[in-house]
Amino acid sequence: MLSTQDSPKTKRRAYLIWTHPRADSLTAQVVAGIKQELQQHDVEVAELDLYRHGFNPVLDVADEPDWGNPDKRYSEEVMELAAALQGSDFGIVVFPLWWYGMPAMLKGYLDRVWNYGLTYGAGRTLPFSKLRWITLVGGGQQEFEGWGNPDNMRHLLNGSIAAYGGVKDAEIEFMYNTIGPEEGSDAADHYAALIAQARAAMVRMLEPAIVPA
Amino acid sequence: MLSTQDSPKTKRRAYLIWTHPRADSLTAQVVAGIKQELQQHDVEVAELDLYRHGFNPVLDVADEPDWGNPDKRYSEEVMELAAALQGSDFGIVVFPLWWYGMPAMLKGYLDRVWNYGLTYGAGRTLPFSKLRWITLVGGGQQEFEGWGNPDNMRHLLNGSIAAYGGVKDAEIEFMYNTIGPEEGSDAADHYAALIAQARAAMVRMLEPAIVPA
Repeated sequence: MLSTQDSPKTKRRAYLIWTHPRADSLTAQVVAGIKQELQQHDVEVAELDLYRHGFNPVLDVADEPDWGNPDKRYSEEVMELAAALQGSDFGIVVFPLWWYGMPAMLKGYLDRVWNYGLTYGAGRTLPFSKLRWITLVGGGQQEFEGWGNPDNMRHLLNGSIAAYGGVKDAEIEFMYNTIGPEEGSDAADHYAALIAQARAAMVRMLEPAIVPA
Repeated sequence: MLSTQDSPKTKRRAYLIWTHPRADSLTAQVVAGIKQELQQHDVEVAELDLYRHGFNPVLDVADEPDWGNPDKRYSEEVMELAAALQGSDFGIVVFPLWWYGMPAMLKGYLDRVWNYGLTYGAGRTLPFSKLRWITLVGGGQQEFEGWGNPDNMRHLLNGSIAAYGGVKDAEIEFMYNTIGPEEGSDAADHYAALIAQARAAMVRMLEPAIVPA
């Protein structure tokens, strides 16, 4: 029998969920930058690449919540992925914004795995002290903010989803012009700046909270 | 060769998309009520039951939009489902609200089929003169409205998704307490009232627009 005393947890741990059909996408490059930044800060990274994992986002009857029973046993895949979250200090979710929201692949992960009795309900919470959503927005910042989209997304992702899971420190990092840079900008420079932006968000996340004297 | 002149279109047509894992769900019963109401008003109904259709909501490379080419040919499944929309006067989308949004199955339908060059972009639009989203909300109206969720959803579904598709007349019908009725109410009465609510929304949709004298 393995004893946890033999391998005490010393490193902080990040659970990194991401979604994009192409493993050579800008999203994937952002993920690589995030992993590198975290590892440089001695944070262990557990990665869930939903597409390469072959996750099935379609919730079927086995994964319907039972509101009367927070101890319901869900499908094996869901029980395993819920267990995989345990012990994580940070949650990081990286996705391209499609129709102003998550791709179906990621939405189905939340529908199935962030489920009643597993990450919320009856006192259950997500294990993260901090949750960061990192989203790649095709268009530009000015128009996106002009339509009020960031506030809408904060309301949904932080105010509802993270809050139900008991995570108070949740933030969204918006990365703009991911289809292509603004006129006059160099594409390679622009994409490098986006990856640097994601890495900087990780550095900020790792800073200890400032405690008033 | 079939001539369309032999079968002139006389009936109005509704395209009804819905999503729920169970064919005996309350969602399915709402759908049945909607179909009956529309047919009683001599409206032809084309139904897309995403679960029983076996739709795959996972967008793969074949269905990634090509922003430089609105004439891109997408996967066969997507081309067929986009073609199936043609000639529809009304769009009706029925779904349970999961994590304050669409189930992955429905989100994937939008990601893949309501795609660039098919329902929007380069002058393409959805064919509907009216679009109705009918959503089953587990909890109660007061709390849901207190959190500002209806406005958030109108912003997303009407102000963004429908608007990109060129549909100006888009509305959401919120159906509350679908997990169970408020205390003191009879469950059977409550569910019958929800089905009646959905049918009434269809009657209102079919009323001609009031033209000022």
